[in-house]
Amino acid sequence: MTGRNGFTVWLTGLSAAGKSTIGRLVAAELERRGALVEVLDGDVVRTHLSKGLGFSKPDRDRNILRIGWVASRLTRAGAAVVVSAISPYRDTRREARAFVEEHGTFVEVYVATSIEECERRDPKGLYQRARAGEIAEFTGVSDPYESPEHAEIEIHTEGRTPEESAALVMAKLEELGLVPAEAIA
Amino acid sequence: MTGRNGFTVWLTGLSAAGKSTIGRLVAAELERRGALVEVLDGDVVRTHLSKGLGFSKPDRDRNILRIGWVASRLTRAGAAVVVSAISPYRDTRREARAFVEEHGTFVEVYVATSIEECERRDPKGLYQRARAGEIAEFTGVSDPYESPEHAEIEIHTEGRTPEESAALVMAKLEELGLVPAEAIA
Repeated sequence: MTGRNGFTVWLTGLSAAGKSTIGRLVAAELERRGALVEVLDGDVVRTHLSKGLGFSKPDRDRNILRIGWVASRLTRAGAAVVVSAISPYRDTRREARAFVEEHGTFVEVYVATSIEECERRDPKGLYQRARAGEIAEFTGVSDPYESPEHAEIEIHTEGRTPEESAALVMAKLEELGLVPAEAIA
Repeated sequence: MTGRNGFTVWLTGLSAAGKSTIGRLVAAELERRGALVEVLDGDVVRTHLSKGLGFSKPDRDRNILRIGWVASRLTRAGAAVVVSAISPYRDTRREARAFVEEHGTFVEVYVATSIEECERRDPKGLYQRARAGEIAEFTGVSDPYESPEHAEIEIHTEGRTPEESAALVMAKLEELGLVPAEAIA
């Protein structure tokens, strides 16, 4: 993990799919293996990059392109970037990918939790509020989610612990040569 | 220039003071000496980070804090970041400095070109338009510029070429131990 071989792991999926949880576990494991890791997820991004943006398509696109651009700069600088963002639009994810691929590898991780399962989890009560009409433009309820067609990895979280899902991501990063495989003790 | 000793060179000053010109020369010299350089100046920032923001104090502050936050992430990743931004408010520059200093050195460069000289240069005709009332909230004309009190270096550009000004910045970076001094041939 020397030199400047930056990459970006981009977790996309519905609200409550498990993106941030899996992303944090992947980030911790990357750090343990010596990477300089930068996590760009919802709260950080809404505070430091995208305050004032809403959930219309133009605002969502702007948010995603902004994250993609920052991820590309950090990838160029050699960081391992972990992004967790609903990022519902295929074309916009493609643009974020193009930014990053100028400087390193882009690994799209589709956290493919079904909407039924996301609604069952609903940790913040957002689906309930969206169904009640209290939140407009809610992805999966009143706003589209375009699932990836060519994600580097698709993770079915149902019946898996977050740790097991994170291990699948790490295995893919090893397979892509982005992190060294762990020596067997 | 090994390891991850990132830093940020932050050029502040009036419009047409010479910030971007000096910044580009410093960036080129840093690259020549082996640094991974990232330039954050007006056009890049307005396109990728701050599209939609205007020139009110809250919008200017948001723009500067956003640049400061991105600079801090890149500094953390070990980059040499060169920011050129009017950044007229002392408190906001201080906040940007605080972000960066969590991870590396912040070098404030006050490009101290007088407003008379900036108006004389006026490469984009902006001062003329501001004086004619066609641009509101124009720094130095209808909006304040709070000059730095504790900049690491203050550069008087009048009577100096941009190359000479850039050399002063490089000398300061050497003095601070951020770049190795050039061997004398």
